[in-house]
Amino acid sequence: MTSPSVPGTYGVASQLLAELTARGWSLAVAESLTGGLLTSAIVEIPGASASLRGGVVAYDTRIKQTVLGVSRQLLDDGGPVQPEVAAQMARGVRVALAVDGADADVGIATTGIAGPVSPDRKPVGTVDLAVAVPGRTRTERHVFRGDRDAIRAQAAARALELALETIRACVTDR
Amino acid sequence: MTSPSVPGTYGVASQLLAELTARGWSLAVAESLTGGLLTSAIVEIPGASASLRGGVVAYDTRIKQTVLGVSRQLLDDGGPVQPEVAAQMARGVRVALAVDGADADVGIATTGIAGPVSPDRKPVGTVDLAVAVPGRTRTERHVFRGDRDAIRAQAAARALELALETIRACVTDR
Repeated sequence: MTSPSVPGTYGVASQLLAELTARGWSLAVAESLTGGLLTSAIVEIPGASASLRGGVVAYDTRIKQTVLGVSRQLLDDGGPVQPEVAAQMARGVRVALAVDGADADVGIATTGIAGPVSPDRKPVGTVDLAVAVPGRTRTERHVFRGDRDAIRAQAAARALELALETIRACVTDR
Repeated sequence: MTSPSVPGTYGVASQLLAELTARGWSLAVAESLTGGLLTSAIVEIPGASASLRGGVVAYDTRIKQTVLGVSRQLLDDGGPVQPEVAAQMARGVRVALAVDGADADVGIATTGIAGPVSPDRKPVGTVDLAVAVPGRTRTERHVFRGDRDAIRAQAAARALELALETIRACVTDR
């Protein structure tokens, strides 16, 4: 009757949750252009509640500032699609979804331009992703092709992969 | 390449955004079992950013309290799946996504049991939905059938319809 939110992400989302569970780590997600798609791809995995605290969809740029703590100056100067905005969203959602004084261990963030038109000079499909773990934040910029749905699906899928890679890399960092 | 988050919701989501735009109203979404699916169904409509402030996925029950302001006593006494929890989530997300001191005009909320097993005596598929507009909150309980994905899809689809009905009813209330 129904299909997964983002085709082809079930495997990577399952692996991500397995890595989080193995470490006893919690997860928080901050989304802009993907608008809930990334979080819903994680929720599709039975047992997601063991690690997933939840997410914030900061679709209105001002919510990135008020809820996620992204610098207003940064947003005013360069707009909502910048690697540093994604980084601050990923770190900020760890704090926004703190429980009993403990930030979420991992934050994932997406921001970008799904189209059909771009609000500035960046091309439609420009996406900044970020993953924050304690002491480290990774960002990646992509320019995805396709329509609005395709851009959002690619952004969500790549964000899951980036999170998995970043968490696995934490082992060797320590 | 991709498919809509929730099949069959494009029309109702479009109508909902049209009604909001006509009133100059803003929208905030609070999700538990639907995990971002409801918000992503709205984001799929081009122009959603004119009304949609964003959403909070309060997957961990504690996030319902800390971010959305749901009563801890209520959660302790009756768990996360209650009509009054959905109502408080819908009202709470209006406040959580306030901008410049102005709450969001409309809040939509979902909470329920997607399965595969129920954490308490309520059957899998039990879903409480709520829509809050200024001065009024409507709730609805459903017991949806099907697997985890089917239950979530039905919850998101019905929440959109309930929001549309509630907003349209606001005209005659005044």
